[in-house]
Amino acid sequence: MIALDVLAQNIGIEYDGVSIPITAMNTLKEAQYSELSFIVDKKHLETLKETQAGAVIVTEAFVDAVPSGCKILLVASNPYLYMAKASKYFAKLPLESDGSVAEIGQNSVVGDNVFIANGARIGNHCIIMPGCYIGTDVTIGDTTILHPNVVVYRDCSIGRACIIHANTTIGCDGFGFAHTSTGEHVKIYQNGNVVIEDDVEIGSNCTIDRAVFGSTCIKHGAKLDNLIQVGHNCVIGEYSLLAAQVGLSGSTELGRNVVMGGQSATAGHLKIAPFTTLAARTGVTKSIEQSGQTFAGFPFMDHRQWLKLQGKLGRLLKK
Amino acid sequence: MIALDVLAQNIGIEYDGVSIPITAMNTLKEAQYSELSFIVDKKHLETLKETQAGAVIVTEAFVDAVPSGCKILLVASNPYLYMAKASKYFAKLPLESDGSVAEIGQNSVVGDNVFIANGARIGNHCIIMPGCYIGTDVTIGDTTILHPNVVVYRDCSIGRACIIHANTTIGCDGFGFAHTSTGEHVKIYQNGNVVIEDDVEIGSNCTIDRAVFGSTCIKHGAKLDNLIQVGHNCVIGEYSLLAAQVGLSGSTELGRNVVMGGQSATAGHLKIAPFTTLAARTGVTKSIEQSGQTFAGFPFMDHRQWLKLQGKLGRLLKK
Amino acid sequence: MIALDVLAQNIGIEYDGVSIPITAMNTLKEAQYSELSFIVDKKHLETLKETQAGAVIVTEAFVDAVPSGCKILLVASNPYLYMAKASKYFAKLPLESDGSVAEIGQNSVVGDNVFIANGARIGNHCIIMPGCYIGTDVTIGDTTILHPNVVVYRDCSIGRACIIHANTTIGCDGFGFAHTSTGEHVKIYQNGNVVIEDDVEIGSNCTIDRAVFGSTCIKHGAKLDNLIQVGHNCVIGEYSLLAAQVGLSGSTELGRNVVMGGQSATAGHLKIAPFTTLAARTGVTKSIEQSGQTFAGFPFMDHRQWLKLQGKLGRLLKK
Repeated sequence: MIALDVLAQNIGIEYDGVSIPITAMNTLKEAQYSELSFIVDKKHLETLKETQAGAVIVTEAFVDAVPSGCKILLVASNPYLYMAKASKYFAKLPLESDGSVAEIGQNSVVGDNVFIANGARIGNHCIIMPGCYIGTDVTIGDTTILHPNVVVYRDCSIGRACIIHANTTIGCDGFGFAHTSTGEHVKIYQNGNVVIEDDVEIGSNCTIDRAVFGSTCIKHGAKLDNLIQVGHNCVIGEYSLLAAQVGLSGSTELGRNVVMGGQSATAGHLKIAPFTTLAARTGVTKSIEQSGQTFAGFPFMDHRQWLKLQGKLGRLLKK
Repeated sequence: MIALDVLAQNIGIEYDGVSIPITAMNTLKEAQYSELSFIVDKKHLETLKETQAGAVIVTEAFVDAVPSGCKILLVASNPYLYMAKASKYFAKLPLESDGSVAEIGQNSVVGDNVFIANGARIGNHCIIMPGCYIGTDVTIGDTTILHPNVVVYRDCSIGRACIIHANTTIGCDGFGFAHTSTGEHVKIYQNGNVVIEDDVEIGSNCTIDRAVFGSTCIKHGAKLDNLIQVGHNCVIGEYSLLAAQVGLSGSTELGRNVVMGGQSATAGHLKIAPFTTLAARTGVTKSIEQSGQTFAGFPFMDHRQWLKLQGKLGRLLKK
Repeated sequence: MIALDVLAQNIGIEYDGVSIPITAMNTLKEAQYSELSFIVDKKHLETLKETQAGAVIVTEAFVDAVPSGCKILLVASNPYLYMAKASKYFAKLPLESDGSVAEIGQNSVVGDNVFIANGARIGNHCIIMPGCYIGTDVTIGDTTILHPNVVVYRDCSIGRACIIHANTTIGCDGFGFAHTSTGEHVKIYQNGNVVIEDDVEIGSNCTIDRAVFGSTCIKHGAKLDNLIQVGHNCVIGEYSLLAAQVGLSGSTELGRNVVMGGQSATAGHLKIAPFTTLAARTGVTKSIEQSGQTFAGFPFMDHRQWLKLQGKLGRLLKK
């Protein structure tokens, strides 16, 4: 928690209004009265008008749309950069030294050289293999298995009957930076978490980024192969199947039973309809609205079209 | 070991024949009399007729081809799904609590925070760096080096004079699931192992999947770079060279001296002839029978054809 | 250190000249009088004429260009192979058992199950999370954070205010081999290191190879996402941004503020001009000299050309 006027001063914004205690940052839509938000793009103008945030970082252009009661941190330009600077003041320690002793359920086995932080809760009949790291306040459901050297950053949760393979990282920071006018990058602290539902299997050496705000989510029954990247704030739908070396950019949402072939990938901020199939190496560049289709190629297209294109290219080659 | 009638009941198959003890599952071709197998596709019909398996899961269509003496678990449809359900009953524990104490050879150095399970045998003059995990019954040959935080799952074997770099995972589960009619995935337990022959080097953060039955194999003198995925039941031929971020889908076999450029990949169940060269990013979609050729592109083609295609596309662009 | 005549005998070169002590191997350009070098390609002939190396491995063709005072190890063919054989004699142990006790600065926190080798120096206010491995003579600057299970091989250095995420490997061997006439591979020992400057962030499960000679370098303020491969002897310029699953082949140099999209990659030995932007999946096959441009595709081309090509392909498909 930090006082609004102190925060403003720390990040270089002049502010002489009433100060309130700020507990966190959040999106305009999700923010509560004790939270700070920001607006970058006018497409969020309507959301700004209804925000419950206690304070917002805005440029002059948006001042009139700020609801009464919401404090205003006014900047000349680049609210995104100031948001990044502010995010640092809400970053938690990687590991808390105090807090309650971790709880470990009945019949759970914890291997040698495992580190379990304070506040963690591990269910019954779990197997935590040697070399794992379980961060502060992590929860793990019954019968889940973590293979050796899995790392789960603080505040993440893993459901029941999950299997996480060796050397996988859950809850590392998403890749988020604001940029200065001289080309430097200011870290946006990733203060959200990862939520993995029940019956999920994740392969080895995967990386599942924590959310910047809120949660990155892998839903019930989804199965991920090895060396997969899941960006911050992604949602992977129920029973989705992701083959090895798949990459999801941030904030992309897969519906249920999406199948992604090896090395396929998506851009960020997309929605992929349920029961979509993406062939190996597909690169999805925009949202897919109709469910049940199959795609291929980069840029991606209907799979039959892609096959036809290969035929056309074959003929071009023979000319 | 489980009695056939108990197993049938557990996975929901009616069976009132003679019960026999079943020790494992295996392919039709490899199964012994104490093992259970299954048939999904009529292309394996001839193999079914000669199987040595003690029991098979079949649909009505294949019953007549089952050899006498082989017990029949009859299902209405989807033997693959029942095979998956059965595989669970042959899965070993990730880590055995009993068994003989691990043997460590003369002049071998074992670092701090290393876990070596019972039944493991480490040769002479090995270096096992800190943080490594060596599972139950793993064998490691003389003079081999495991860099920090390498994980070797149970039952795998690594030959002499190998170098395995940090954070690599050997023997994690292959990505195998059967699917229910409502889109759920049933894990096929991966009860095989990984066999790495002598003089193999594997880079950092690679994932080498264990076989579903039998062994995933990396042969003598092969060299793998970093962040490589090797699917279950693959065979990598002698002296093959795989550059970083290569991906091999399951059951693909490379001949000797195959060279794969960075980010290249293969589909599953292919055979790649010896001395094949695959340019960076090549995506191999069918078997390569003639040795000594060079390929590029996705879908892949002869490398000279690919260069010619780029020329054609360049001219298309100028039209 | 090894005597030149002993080294020659070990690697199978006849040598009856004066012996000198050899301390290391190096490039023709960088080698000092106590170092051994080699020449493979006549494009380095002028460099050979001015080398300060104490000895060189050459074929008959280059003998006349060797400066007086530089000893000659003459081979019939393939100096590269003999260089590889020689490199083994300069390889350091992965971990030294002697040397001074590691120094850990004020207010630094070292987690459980961390291994810090002799000769390492960790600055003030650092956080080294559980399960990390810090090799012999590694240096880490003030306020740097290593998340759990990070591995830093010997002799590498990490600057101030860096963040390295979990399961990342820094300083593993580059992928370098010489090849015999019968297709076997002889390891070129990677005797260089990795130097990471200040304010660098590296994601999870990345692999940063050490240099064969000299240093792989990640410069001030660069930010790397997850699952990235950086080959030996690469230089990543100040404030560069690399998205997830990027791959850099060996000896490629990025200027400052280069942006690489997800899964993009470069061939080796290239120079990429400052302020270059590479779209996702771009495959860079030759050097980029003019700064500030945007590219896409594989083979790569100007981004607008790539968009135009997609339009042309779309029309081809409709014909």
